Amino acid sequence: MDLGIRIEKALDVALTKAEGADCPPGLAAALRYAVFPAGHRIRPRLVMAVSEACGGSDPDAADAAAAAIEFLHCASLVHDDLPCFDDADERRGKPSVHRAFGQPVAVLAGDALIVLAFETIARGVPGDARKLGGLVRLVGQAVGAPAGICAGQAWESEPTVSVAAYHRAKTASLFAGATAAGALAAGADPLAWRDLGERLGEAYQVADDISDIAATSEQTGKTSNRDSLLGRPNVAHEMGLDEALALLDRTVVEAIAAVPVCPGQAQLRAAILLETKRFLPAGLVRTAA
Amino acid sequence: MDLGIRIEKALDVALTKAEGADCPPGLAAALRYAVFPAGHRIRPRLVMAVSEACGGSDPDAADAAAAAIEFLHCASLVHDDLPCFDDADERRGKPSVHRAFGQPVAVLAGDALIVLAFETIARGVPGDARKLGGLVRLVGQAVGAPAGICAGQAWESEPTVSVAAYHRAKTASLFAGATAAGALAAGADPLAWRDLGERLGEAYQVADDISDIAATSEQTGKTSNRDSLLGRPNVAHEMGLDEALALLDRTVVEAIAAVPVCPGQAQLRAAILLETKRFLPAGLVRTAA
Repeated sequence: MDLGIRIEKALDVALTKAEGADCPPGLAAALRYAVFPAGHRIRPRLVMAVSEACGGSDPDAADAAAAAIEFLHCASLVHDDLPCFDDADERRGKPSVHRAFGQPVAVLAGDALIVLAFETIARGVPGDARKLGGLVRLVGQAVGAPAGICAGQAWESEPTVSVAAYHRAKTASLFAGATAAGALAAGADPLAWRDLGERLGEAYQVADDISDIAATSEQTGKTSNRDSLLGRPNVAHEMGLDEALALLDRTVVEAIAAVPVCPGQAQLRAAILLETKRFLPAGLVRTAA
Repeated sequence: MDLGIRIEKALDVALTKAEGADCPPGLAAALRYAVFPAGHRIRPRLVMAVSEACGGSDPDAADAAAAAIEFLHCASLVHDDLPCFDDADERRGKPSVHRAFGQPVAVLAGDALIVLAFETIARGVPGDARKLGGLVRLVGQAVGAPAGICAGQAWESEPTVSVAAYHRAKTASLFAGATAAGALAAGADPLAWRDLGERLGEAYQVADDISDIAATSEQTGKTSNRDSLLGRPNVAHEMGLDEALALLDRTVVEAIAAVPVCPGQAQLRAAILLETKRFLPAGLVRTAA
């Protein structure tokens, strides 16, 4: 089955359990609204691609890890958009969850997606304590404290910030969790795969900075120029667009070089080259050139 | 070791990992502030007491399950106190987390505590896939959607609410998760232990309703009369204080009768009688009599 179809199916199956008959209708609707229709699904595609490159011996574990990583990404977007953070009205080209369902349900939908992520892993890896425990810890490390997404977001409330630590925690941690989880799902050593994820996270951050200053809201589905509005560091703003595009290319090349030896190394390198083109919205590179 | 001391130690050890060197100082401080100093620790004490009654064969698993349940309870309090929900200024006799650290850090502290709960279970149950997977699923069911704490809280945003479903999800689900997790930690059948937890959750809810109308803020460490201020159902308001106190007694007796056959059945029954006295703040019963 095509990886993209597998991801949507895994997300749908897991979400259906959370929407059970007892669920308050507003919460159930908000959960589905936060996850569908699909964004680029960059992180779960990465989980799946790495798992396949490592032999793909346990598709259920890969599906579960991919869905968990996407649920956590969606949860972070829902909370990140809240008025006390970015106060974003739009996400993926439609009203943000708190705009559509109100703040209380948005907070709870984020919470419930975090919980659902871990439940999904537990359901997908029933018989292997080392793999199950490892996936829970890897994914937890990528999103919690001291150095996951929550920590990255919390740096925005600190008076002094290390930009490198901020981006590493807020963006690269989930990419590193995705590559490590994909490897572990297939029985490979997760530690060897973190470096690839971190470099892809850096590339994504550069692309996101470029999009923020050079793309329109129609192209990204979210508000443009947020970084300067919110006083956040933006590498494309600091070094200029051409330099930033060159940095993006270099970081992608380094990421491709960091793919560990594995049965599907050549295919994975090709897939990463293709996927990273989707880091920038369609039409942006031409517009910026 | 005394169960109370074991709980505080398990919470401290797990929290120390989340506060690692890379953690933004505000987030690290908010996490500790949300968990310490101790509240009554009713739910983790219940995990421990059930695990001991079932033979206490795996103290690490019991410690992990107890800490996870308390982290999730604390997370729910932090988010529940936010301005978009109860807008509570105080909790456990001190400013609520968002009053002390601001809303962004409060949202993130709640998120990070949810993640930490699952990481703690994974660390405490390294070698038993059935037990680890079961604990993650039990705990997830108690707090997420469709019928855990998040769902309970989300009922407050619905135009029509089943009061029974609301209380079952918002309060009883975590008690049922606590008894089931305590049993599973010790290798017993978790399903047989849910009924006890649900009845204790009902008793706790009745006690909470009584406290809300009859206790002072000094006695409870939180704002009194919240239910009538927020238009929520309150059984003590509806049936009167004396009837509500009688209902509390009856529910406790039913809970005690629901303790399954186990090696420590008699001691657990005695412990539950003692613990449920702490459901009402000290001095309240005398004041109300």
